Amino acid sequence: SSNPRGAGAGAGAGGGGGESRVPEIRKDSVQNRWVIFSPARSRRPSDFKSKFTTSSGNPPDPHSQNCPFCLGNEHHCAPEIFRVHPSHSAHWKLRVIQNLYPALSRDNLPVQPEQIGNNKVAGFGFHDVVIEAPFHSLQLLDLSPAEIGDVLLAYKKRILQLRSYHSIQYVQVFKNHGASAGASLSHSHSQIIALPVVPTAASARIDCMKQHFEQTGKCNLCEVQVDDLLIDESAHFISIVPFAATFPFEIWIIPRDHSSHFHEVDNEKAVDLGGLLKLLLRKISSQLNDPPYNMMIHTTPFHINPSCLTYTHWFLQIVPQLTIVGGFEVGTGCHINPIFPEDAAKVLREVQL
Amino acid sequence: SSNPRGAGAGAGAGGGGGESRVPEIRKDSVQNRWVIFSPARSRRPSDFKSKFTTSSGNPPDPHSQNCPFCLGNEHHCAPEIFRVHPSHSAHWKLRVIQNLYPALSRDNLPVQPEQIGNNKVAGFGFHDVVIEAPFHSLQLLDLSPAEIGDVLLAYKKRILQLRSYHSIQYVQVFKNHGASAGASLSHSHSQIIALPVVPTAASARIDCMKQHFEQTGKCNLCEVQVDDLLIDESAHFISIVPFAATFPFEIWIIPRDHSSHFHEVDNEKAVDLGGLLKLLLRKISSQLNDPPYNMMIHTTPFHINPSCLTYTHWFLQIVPQLTIVGGFEVGTGCHINPIFPEDAAKVLREVQL
Ligand SMILES: Nc1ncnc2c1ncn2[C@@H]1O[C@H](COP(=O)(O)OP(=O)(O)O[C@H]2O[C@H](CO)[C@@H](O)[C@H](O)[C@H]2O)[C@@H](O)[C@H]1O
Ligand SMILES: Nc1ncnc2c1ncn2[C@@H]1O[C@H](COP(=O)(O)OP(=O)(O)O[C@H]2O[C@H](CO)[C@@H](O)[C@H](O)[C@H]2O)[C@@H](O)[C@H]1O
Repeated sequence: SSNPRGAGAGAGAGGGGGESRVPEIRKDSVQNRWVIFSPARSRRPSDFKSKFTTSSGNPPDPHSQNCPFCLGNEHHCAPEIFRVHPSHSAHWKLRVIQNLYPALSRDNLPVQPEQIGNNKVAGFGFHDVVIEAPFHSLQLLDLSPAEIGDVLLAYKKRILQLRSYHSIQYVQVFKNHGASAGASLSHSHSQIIALPVVPTAASARIDCMKQHFEQTGKCNLCEVQVDDLLIDESAHFISIVPFAATFPFEIWIIPRDHSSHFHEVDNEKAVDLGGLLKLLLRKISSQLNDPPYNMMIHTTPFHINPSCLTYTHWFLQIVPQLTIVGGFEVGTGCHINPIFPEDAAKVLREVQL
Repeated sequence: SSNPRGAGAGAGAGGGGGESRVPEIRKDSVQNRWVIFSPARSRRPSDFKSKFTTSSGNPPDPHSQNCPFCLGNEHHCAPEIFRVHPSHSAHWKLRVIQNLYPALSRDNLPVQPEQIGNNKVAGFGFHDVVIEAPFHSLQLLDLSPAEIGDVLLAYKKRILQLRSYHSIQYVQVFKNHGASAGASLSHSHSQIIALPVVPTAASARIDCMKQHFEQTGKCNLCEVQVDDLLIDESAHFISIVPFAATFPFEIWIIPRDHSSHFHEVDNEKAVDLGGLLKLLLRKISSQLNDPPYNMMIHTTPFHINPSCLTYTHWFLQIVPQLTIVGGFEVGTGCHINPIFPEDAAKVLREVQL
């Protein structure tokens, strides 16, 4: 199990009654946040010996007989949603599948708008896995810009499908690379979770950008101060270490043109973004010794007042896992970052690959 | 170093220019949160071989010659603020000292109210360490209720001192136990950080409790639903797994009587709380195999409108580190908890010690 303590303790001591329950989403009405309760999650397998015995990214296991995500092992996976199978290729290059241990269930009753004010709703939603490559030895940074573009376009295609469910409010695309960034399987993959509520981080972002717009008449991310925070640029995107980076060497990739929703990205921009993403992942890997990292796409909720689209602007965030979160951060939500963003940007700008 | 990658990368690649800078607090105006930048932090020592090689709490090293927090090694520490030295005892039992690698600096210029609207302020503040016991082999749960009460009263005494600085807005008391909960030293200790800004988590809490009060006329935590969430009670406190616990086996200890500020605790209540805290730490340790954990005291900002005191209620939070935070949580602020609170509470209620 990927969570030996939690699961073991719960099961061993009579707390395992939750195993058969359906997921539920509850609101913490003291700390103002949603929490997903999902007993099925504690049954996930893990191909990392222990979450705590590796501090680096995955040294990918070349023996992949037991890896459900490898080409040829499709029958070990939950059902496929779609695959990308180029006509010139003998096999699939990318698959989007259901998560076998989903945090939310597509079989729960959809959440009705009037229930959102309650402090709990049924755990309705979708939880998918994007298998980014057919072979165990390939990591995202090994793919070509066009292949990374295909991964991004698969996110887009799936998001557009999920948008058709009226009660889905928000879609979070994310990637865990390396055991201490949360990955339980080392085969290169990312995940897509579609939620029936707007998570706190997304509403805080809208509030913040609205405030900036009301003060300045401008979109905060169209106007972002680059100066000594710039890392690299491409035709359609810029990459920076943000002015108040929460984590050391945190990176944001921001579309130059105003765009609220990630799913507005077109084929040309996807390949362009693929190239920039590849460059940054290679820089992180070479400069920070292949660290574990998380990648997140921060988009805008589906059902938002159209007037908000003027000041919401999607971006992609990369967070290498270099520090440990302690009680101060858990308690305050305020992080302590030992590296000034200007210094981190300089390092990443000047890396020789 | 406790942060070998971050520090090494920064220093080795020319990003080390920040070492001589003073700390700074910046506002992320997209995600609405404060971040502390503190280059000095990357020089902290660590007596854990590697942050990632132990998944358990600290097996305390009996050889403590190199531990600055041990009795007799006071000269290796930053200056003392005060100590507790019972008259019947041959030595001190507890010391409150300055942190040698402070996240914030008491030498920076105090922050003026008009600066708070800016997106950065000087890193003014206080960062102290509470050495909870003189001997390396003692953990907090080994102390008697009265001795734990003394630790709590030391927090109170220091908070009252910090309150006298006009520009200090909030004080966070926290404890990191075990390497993967962030601890860099294994000798039993906790920390106190006094901030010139109100952190996001504290303002979100006030907003949430205000909303509950406006809807019901009642304080959210005076009225907290206990039912099957109760773990243990004492004369003045109850302990529960909260209804929407963010983390598996998360615990809140809540004073029965309405109280906004932790520093209102008196001697009798401190000993009572010490006993309940000891019981819960022993239960976690025995039931979850001495997990790493964080403990946080959530109090109310100093300079708050007196009308808010009706609905703000302090509590103490214990978070065992049993799961790993991944990209979904970092991205959304919404956590996935595999254990329902009712099940966790049952386990902790029924543990036989
Ligand atoms: N045969 C199969 N078919 C289909 N799907 C399969 C499968 N076998 C396994 N899976 C799924 O594949 C996914 C792999 O995902 P990751 O390795 O990125 O992290 P995981 O979701 O385990 O948890 C990390 O990310 C989440 C979300 O951030 C955190 O809650 C958690 O603590 C952290 O460890 C798992 O969700 C698993 O359920
Ligand atoms: N001789 C001496 N005299 C005085 N003080 C001394 C000292 N030697 C060391 N110290 C201080 O003692 C403290 C020990 O604290 P902890 O072990 O609880 O975690 P730390 O603050 O290192 O970081 C953890 O907690 C913080 C805050 O949650 C996270 O930012 C971080 O990532 C995580 O590892 C350190 O802050 C250190 O600076």
